[in-house]
Amino acid sequence: MERRFERELESLKTSIIKMGSVVEDNFSKALESVLRDDLSLAKAVIDGDGRINELEMEIDNAVIDLLALQQPVATDLRLIIAVQKINNDLERIGDHAVNIAESAEWLGASKDKEPLLQIPRMAELTRTVLRHALDSFILLDPKLAQTVLERDDQIDLLNKETVREVIGLIKSDSRTVDGGMQIIRISRNLERVGDLSTNIAEEVIFLTQARVVKHHAAEVHHHPMQSKKH
Amino acid sequence: MERRFERELESLKTSIIKMGSVVEDNFSKALESVLRDDLSLAKAVIDGDGRINELEMEIDNAVIDLLALQQPVATDLRLIIAVQKINNDLERIGDHAVNIAESAEWLGASKDKEPLLQIPRMAELTRTVLRHALDSFILLDPKLAQTVLERDDQIDLLNKETVREVIGLIKSDSRTVDGGMQIIRISRNLERVGDLSTNIAEEVIFLTQARVVKHHAAEVHHHPMQSKKH
Repeated sequence: MERRFERELESLKTSIIKMGSVVEDNFSKALESVLRDDLSLAKAVIDGDGRINELEMEIDNAVIDLLALQQPVATDLRLIIAVQKINNDLERIGDHAVNIAESAEWLGASKDKEPLLQIPRMAELTRTVLRHALDSFILLDPKLAQTVLERDDQIDLLNKETVREVIGLIKSDSRTVDGGMQIIRISRNLERVGDLSTNIAEEVIFLTQARVVKHHAAEVHHHPMQSKKH
Repeated sequence: MERRFERELESLKTSIIKMGSVVEDNFSKALESVLRDDLSLAKAVIDGDGRINELEMEIDNAVIDLLALQQPVATDLRLIIAVQKINNDLERIGDHAVNIAESAEWLGASKDKEPLLQIPRMAELTRTVLRHALDSFILLDPKLAQTVLERDDQIDLLNKETVREVIGLIKSDSRTVDGGMQIIRISRNLERVGDLSTNIAEEVIFLTQARVVKHHAAEVHHHPMQSKKH
């Protein structure tokens, strides 16, 4: 029983890392579809989301099975619950990639070429925070996770800046409203991916803090989630 | 041990029902702050969100404790995992209530009075789906849960309609862009609350389907989550 549990826990870790890599790949394609105005890439993103939803369900099932298999010890239990939450966050990042790809399709089909404003900078930052959030989980590295929280603040500022700039453009020429709405939509979806990457990084900080406490102090926290920020 | 588990499971159910009622109340206030242009109500919503975040953490801790206490049987395990997910959905509905209240503050402070377009109808529908989603969970009523899914489609259509109408207004008078953006923001947040209510309703449908299967068939599903729609 013990060994079967260890084996299934390892398999769960492998699955969530794979999920992260599939989502990262689809998100990256969504960004490129906007930045390079590439309609076939946009289509690939939309087509690829089904696989992400399947992976999410597989991991959700594996979590339930692991919890039912035996009563995991505190550290394993926290890890399993973290995997469940990160799995859900990743699935939602997949949905945002689809939204971005849809806007890329709209912009690509439009005869007016919209200025992308802060989108290229936001895309680069968001790609970085997602990568670092996933790496911080794989390495259980709270310092790397911390950098995600800081960069996410920059993404939030750039999102506000984008909305301001689009409103300025619309005021000077109201014909830019349709394209401007798509730019705002992309910006807002990038901002949400930043938030979800922050969720993942916070899970890692919480997991590793609990671990540090466990290693350095005799007292075990009864409520490990209490220190988690919201 | 058995009795302690039963007692804590009952207490968890009570807590999630309370969480639902606090979130519903704050969301309802957020709607009224928009519809009645009531700034003090908007402030109350923003101030009330801290309590919701506290409740979310308490329930999250209770879930971890219950899972650690003993290996729950399949039905209990599914219920506990459903509570955890619904808890997260409710906390996010709380965040959307805050966003709506912030837009109410913006609109209230503006000298131009924006037309609310489809917002009153969306508000009514969203209030209904949230109520029915929560009731369907309390009563474990899959038919009531099903009505949530149908009404959510109407909310999505009204959201698209609102965006179209705002774009039309901006095209005819670009000075309406600032207020129009707030109307779109409210509409989008209502649409998200509809989606989150749908998540809750889907959990209920999944929970009760699993129960029906268990009662009517000898075979127990190995992967109860497989039938869940995404």
